[in-house]
Amino acid sequence: METGRLEAFADGVFAIAATLLIIDVSVTAPGGALGHAVLHAWPAYAAYAVSFLTIGIMWVNHHACIRVIAVADTTFLTLNLLLLMCIAFVPFPTNLIAAHIRDSGLRAAALTYGVTLTTTAVCFGSFWFYAARGRRLIAPDADPRLVSGISRSYLPGSLIYGTATLVALWNAQVSVALFAAIALFYLLESSIFGGRGPESEA
Amino acid sequence: METGRLEAFADGVFAIAATLLIIDVSVTAPGGALGHAVLHAWPAYAAYAVSFLTIGIMWVNHHACIRVIAVADTTFLTLNLLLLMCIAFVPFPTNLIAAHIRDSGLRAAALTYGVTLTTTAVCFGSFWFYAARGRRLIAPDADPRLVSGISRSYLPGSLIYGTATLVALWNAQVSVALFAAIALFYLLESSIFGGRGPESEA
Amino acid sequence: METGRLEAFADGVFAIAATLLIIDVSVTAPGGALGHAVLHAWPAYAAYAVSFLTIGIMWVNHHACIRVIAVADTTFLTLNLLLLMCIAFVPFPTNLIAAHIRDSGLRAAALTYGVTLTTTAVCFGSFWFYAARGRRLIAPDADPRLVSGISRSYLPGSLIYGTATLVALWNAQVSVALFAAIALFYLLESSIFGGRGPESEA
Amino acid sequence: METGRLEAFADGVFAIAATLLIIDVSVTAPGGALGHAVLHAWPAYAAYAVSFLTIGIMWVNHHACIRVIAVADTTFLTLNLLLLMCIAFVPFPTNLIAAHIRDSGLRAAALTYGVTLTTTAVCFGSFWFYAARGRRLIAPDADPRLVSGISRSYLPGSLIYGTATLVALWNAQVSVALFAAIALFYLLESSIFGGRGPESEA
Repeated sequence: METGRLEAFADGVFAIAATLLIIDVSVTAPGGALGHAVLHAWPAYAAYAVSFLTIGIMWVNHHACIRVIAVADTTFLTLNLLLLMCIAFVPFPTNLIAAHIRDSGLRAAALTYGVTLTTTAVCFGSFWFYAARGRRLIAPDADPRLVSGISRSYLPGSLIYGTATLVALWNAQVSVALFAAIALFYLLESSIFGGRGPESEA
Repeated sequence: METGRLEAFADGVFAIAATLLIIDVSVTAPGGALGHAVLHAWPAYAAYAVSFLTIGIMWVNHHACIRVIAVADTTFLTLNLLLLMCIAFVPFPTNLIAAHIRDSGLRAAALTYGVTLTTTAVCFGSFWFYAARGRRLIAPDADPRLVSGISRSYLPGSLIYGTATLVALWNAQVSVALFAAIALFYLLESSIFGGRGPESEA
Repeated sequence: METGRLEAFADGVFAIAATLLIIDVSVTAPGGALGHAVLHAWPAYAAYAVSFLTIGIMWVNHHACIRVIAVADTTFLTLNLLLLMCIAFVPFPTNLIAAHIRDSGLRAAALTYGVTLTTTAVCFGSFWFYAARGRRLIAPDADPRLVSGISRSYLPGSLIYGTATLVALWNAQVSVALFAAIALFYLLESSIFGGRGPESEA
Repeated sequence: METGRLEAFADGVFAIAATLLIIDVSVTAPGGALGHAVLHAWPAYAAYAVSFLTIGIMWVNHHACIRVIAVADTTFLTLNLLLLMCIAFVPFPTNLIAAHIRDSGLRAAALTYGVTLTTTAVCFGSFWFYAARGRRLIAPDADPRLVSGISRSYLPGSLIYGTATLVALWNAQVSVALFAAIALFYLLESSIFGGRGPESEA
C-alpha cells in the first residue's frame, strides 16, 4: 500500500483529536459571575494548550516518519491504527486533569494522562522501529543519517513520559508541570530529529 | 466520477467516526474517588478500543476496494453513502454497550451493536459486489486474483456479525466478547484479503 | 485560486457535518427498559438517516459542480463559505425534529428544518449560477450539455424544499414525510443532473 | 518540509473548528413553546454565523499565504501549530457570547472572544511575517507585489480586533456588533489582500 491514503486518514484523526479538545472547555456561570469564572477556568485552557501542542508535535513527527517510509505492509497499518487509537484517546485524560486540578483527584488524573501518553510513545516507537529495522519499509533513497536521527530521537520518548507518570505517585502537581514542560520543550526544541537538520534542509 | 474525491469524503467520515468515539468516554467523580472511578470505567475504554479498531479495519478494507476500482457510477456513490451512514452510526451502540455492561440492558445494547455491524457488513458487501460483478467498475489492469480474494473475504462478513448478534439472545456477555474477538482477529490476521498477499506485495 | 484546496475544506465540512449527526442520537434508560427505549427512539435514527443522506447528496452535487469549474474568484469563495455554513447548520434542526416527533413542537421543528434546507438550496443555487452565468468560472473544455444539465437540475431545488416547508404550516407530519421522501427520491434517482448521463459517462 | 501535508492538517482543523460550532446551538423547550424558543435563540445562530465566517475567512487567508510559501522550517511549523490552536479555541468564546447576550455576563464574554481573536490575529501575523521577512520561505517565483499586499493587509488585523476588544470595557453590545461587522466587512470586501487583485487574477 502506498502511504498516501494512510496519511489522509492519520491527518484526519490528528486534526479531529486536537480540535475536539475544545469541547471540554466550557464555563457556566450566572452573568454577574462570568468574568471571575472565565479566569478561574485557566486550568482548562492550559490543559487544552498542552494537549493540542502534544498532538500537534506528534503529527509533525508522524509526518517526518511517513516521509522516509516508502510502503506500508499490513503489520504497519495495524501499528498505525493502534497509534491513532492512542492519539484519539488524549482528550479524555486531558479533561480529567482540567476538572481535578484543584482537588485530590489530580493524582489519578495525572496517572491516567501519563499512562495514555506513555502508551502512545510506546506505540509510536513500535510504529517507527517496525518500519526502520533493517530499513524494512524505508525508501531506498532516504538519507541514512536522517533515519538514524529519527531512531535516536524516539528512544527516550517512552522513558520521559514514563518518568513523568511515576512522579505523579509522589506529587501530582509536579507531574502535571512536567507534562507541560515536555510539550513546551519539544515545541521550542522544534527540530526533534537530530537538531535543526532535516526539516530546515528540506 | 474518478474515485479520488470519493476517498477524501470517505476518509473524513471514517476518521471522524473513529475519533468521535472518545466523546462518550468520560468519568465524573469527586476527587477522592477518581482513582477508583477511572479503573471502574474500563468497559468504556474497551468499547472505545473495539469500535475504533473495527472502524479502522473497515477503513483499510474500504481502501483496498477503492484501489482496484477505476470509476464510480451513481449507484456506487449511493451504496458508498449508505455504507458511510452505517459507519458513522457505530458510536451510538458503542456507547450503549459501555453504559450497560454491568446491568440487564446489555442484551439490548449488544443487539443494537450487532444489528449495526451486521447492516454495515451487508452494505459493505453490496458496495463491493456491485463494483466487482462482471468487473463493472474494476480497473482493467487490476489483478483478477486480488479481486476474487476480496470477494471471497467479504462473503462471510455479514454471517459472522449476524451470528454474534444472534448469540446476544442467548447470552449478552458472550456476544460482546465475540465482537471484541472479531475485531482482534481481523487486526491480527491483518491481511484480510487472501492471506498476507496483496498489501505486502504492493 | 485553483479549486483543489477549496475541495479539501468543503469535503471536511461535509464529512464532519454528516458524522456529527450521531452525537444527537442517544438513549438513556435503566437496564431493564433499554430494549424498549432503543426501539422507541426510531425517530432519532430516521432523522439521522435523512439528514446524513441529504448532506451526502449535497456533497455529490458539490463535487459535480466543482468538477466543471476551473477557477475560483473571491465572490465564489464567499458563496462557497455561505453554502458550507448552511450545511454545517443541518444537525441543529435535525435534532429538533427527532426530539419533537411525538409532540406539538413538530411544527416549529419542521419549519426550522425546512427554512434551513430551503436556505441551503438557495445558497447552492447562488454558488452554481454565479459560476455558470456566462460560463464565468467554467472550464473551457467542460461539456455545455453537462453545464446546462446541472443548471436545469438546480432550478427546482429551492422550490421543492420551500414547498415542503410551507406544508408544515398545514400539517407538520406530512412536511416531515416530504423531507424524507425528497432525500429518498434524490438518492434513488441518483443521477440528479439530467438523467443517468454525466456520472456514468465519465 | 513541503507544505502539502501542512495544508491537509490545517484544512482539517479549520473545517472541524467551524463545523463544531453547531454543537453549541441547541434549543430545549416543551413542544408548545418550541416555536418561540427557536426564535428566541437567534443570538446562538448569529454567533454561529459570525464565528463560522470568521474561521472561513481565516482559512481563505491561510491558503493565500501557503500558496506563496515554498518550504516550511520547524519554526514555521511551530507558529502554524500555535495559530491552529487559537482557531480551534474559537468555539469556546462563541458559546459564551451566545449564552450571555441578554445578561450582564456579555462584557466578560466579549472580552474573552476579543482576546481570542486578537491573539489569533497576532499568531497569524507571526506566522506570515516569519515566512515573509527577507522572503525567508517565499517561493522564488512569487510575485513581490502579492507578497507585500498580504503583508500590508495583515498589519491592521491585530489592531482592529484589539480595538473591538477594548470597546467591550465601555459597552459590550457595541463590541459584539463590531465583531460581527468585522466579519461582514472581510466577507464583502472579499479580496482582503490588496483589493480584488490576486485571487481574481489567478
